[in-house]
Amino acid sequence: MTVRATTVQPIAWSPAGGVRILDQRALPEACVERDLETAEAVAEAIRTLQVRGAPLIGIAAAMGLVAGTRELRAAPRDRFLDRLEAQARLLAATRPTAINLRWALDRMLGVARATPGDGGALWERLRAEATAIWEEDRAMCRRIGEAGLALVPDGARVLTHCNAGALATGGIGTALAPVYLAHAAGRRVHVFVDETRPVLQGARMTAWELAQAGVPCTVLADAAAAALLRQGRVDVVIVGADRIAANGDFANKIGTYPLALLAHHHGVPFYCAAPSSSIDPDLPDGAGIPIEERPADEVKTFAGRPVAPAAVAAWNPAFDVTPARYVRGYVTERGLERPPFGAARQP
Amino acid sequence: MTVRATTVQPIAWSPAGGVRILDQRALPEACVERDLETAEAVAEAIRTLQVRGAPLIGIAAAMGLVAGTRELRAAPRDRFLDRLEAQARLLAATRPTAINLRWALDRMLGVARATPGDGGALWERLRAEATAIWEEDRAMCRRIGEAGLALVPDGARVLTHCNAGALATGGIGTALAPVYLAHAAGRRVHVFVDETRPVLQGARMTAWELAQAGVPCTVLADAAAAALLRQGRVDVVIVGADRIAANGDFANKIGTYPLALLAHHHGVPFYCAAPSSSIDPDLPDGAGIPIEERPADEVKTFAGRPVAPAAVAAWNPAFDVTPARYVRGYVTERGLERPPFGAARQP
Repeated sequence: MTVRATTVQPIAWSPAGGVRILDQRALPEACVERDLETAEAVAEAIRTLQVRGAPLIGIAAAMGLVAGTRELRAAPRDRFLDRLEAQARLLAATRPTAINLRWALDRMLGVARATPGDGGALWERLRAEATAIWEEDRAMCRRIGEAGLALVPDGARVLTHCNAGALATGGIGTALAPVYLAHAAGRRVHVFVDETRPVLQGARMTAWELAQAGVPCTVLADAAAAALLRQGRVDVVIVGADRIAANGDFANKIGTYPLALLAHHHGVPFYCAAPSSSIDPDLPDGAGIPIEERPADEVKTFAGRPVAPAAVAAWNPAFDVTPARYVRGYVTERGLERPPFGAARQP
Repeated sequence: MTVRATTVQPIAWSPAGGVRILDQRALPEACVERDLETAEAVAEAIRTLQVRGAPLIGIAAAMGLVAGTRELRAAPRDRFLDRLEAQARLLAATRPTAINLRWALDRMLGVARATPGDGGALWERLRAEATAIWEEDRAMCRRIGEAGLALVPDGARVLTHCNAGALATGGIGTALAPVYLAHAAGRRVHVFVDETRPVLQGARMTAWELAQAGVPCTVLADAAAAALLRQGRVDVVIVGADRIAANGDFANKIGTYPLALLAHHHGVPFYCAAPSSSIDPDLPDGAGIPIEERPADEVKTFAGRPVAPAAVAAWNPAFDVTPARYVRGYVTERGLERPPFGAARQP
């Protein structure tokens, strides 16, 4: 029997062949769908966090290339490839940390170059490839959920950070995939959700999609997680990843590193769940992962209101790097893994 | 030569003899002063964080008793004391964690009982005592600053959490007192300020009062402090305290405990600065400190807008307890100290 986990879906093709997204900036107050008809619009949506989550931005970028080359179906091959490459550069420049973005764009460029013919043939091939990337991600999420299901027994109390759920992927998420499958299998699960400042992906997105799916959860300030761990109220910590180095060091949302250290200190197992496309085998360790610094206003304002004096500076790194030694295991679509991750990714 | 540090002043007597406060909920957008003319109004202001900070709520409560007994100056002794005790119970019930509140109220009740005469004589004595508590706090802040001045040499990069500055005290603060004195002495100091969710005392208050005083500072999300420490960008961490047990365990704003653990892990010295009135020698260790849990809406809404789904729960402990083993030293008005703290507090 296949247990079905029902979750929200943050991306789709628009009726006109563009990219339909759920604008994640509006959650949880409103569900706003937007149709993005150009690669530029998709790039802007990724840059401004309308679409976020490492797997999802890879999918969105691939679909954005398809949307952006619709008008070039009658173009000769060279012109099509020139424009495609320009759009891929634009999309790649939106966010530096997640490897999935670069991986999806490289894959799209690779199949275009390997496909004979002019614009029409290339575009059809790209559309199929973007759809495949999305469908593979959905399947990977499910396999990640199955690989991690044993981490979430009946009664489990799970702590997570940021959003590595359905809203971050093409399927049922990465860190939340085992939770959704456990819930669908009738296990009682409670999820503690770090609110995840400054963008509040935990409070706004993870809590929202868990509530939509009927999974009980409790939101807390990021700095309260230490007290929760100290009180013995967490059985397992599961987070996602934006990029995993060959040695297992990984970048994830700012605040993941202290959470890993605290979990380690309190003897609570800490797992990183991600598709193998998040592994960057060319990077020996986490020191080489580029860390995006985002605008100070994400920290200094909220919903347009100042929460810090205009004159002061703010430091706003979007990610931090967690050393592999604090990670009990890596949940990928291949199963529960341990580094080093030397294998080349599957194309 | 006495170096003068100029800071904001969050409390005063109102022209009518009530308590004039700076409503800290409105910062940094607006400086709103309120005149509180009854003990009930002061209690409400403490409960709703219009006035906060362990030393300041002690001062405010003492002044609130004076404001609340103005109308009883013609009352007979017994009636005056009955009303005074009722008001003290009301004020004591506002917030459970800070010891200063109970300490200030006990001190006020003690002098009233020890003073002969009827309402008029008792009220005059109480007014003098409340003013003395305030003035002693101002002097204690200064001595804490002097005791901690060596922790902030020229070029020092200080990390702090919450607000233990002028806005939390009757003077130049506790954790920030050494910073203000170092700045006033011409030393270059940079303060990294944890924004301190959920109430944002760091971003809204600490950054504001530092900016008012001309001290350079940078605000960051609480969960970003780990990356900052890891990058070697902090020389010393100084925080305040709401209650210090005899063994040195202390309660302070939620998020202090992980910060102490992280500072320890990264070899960065961590200090707790507080007046000796924050020491509770009757408590052997931190396990006995009552931790206030505040309303879920502090986490789930922001400036009136929901940031988490209405249906989900939120856990909102206002404080956590930091074990003494992570604390390099305690900066009090008596100097740099180490536990155990057995000495009875001075009346």
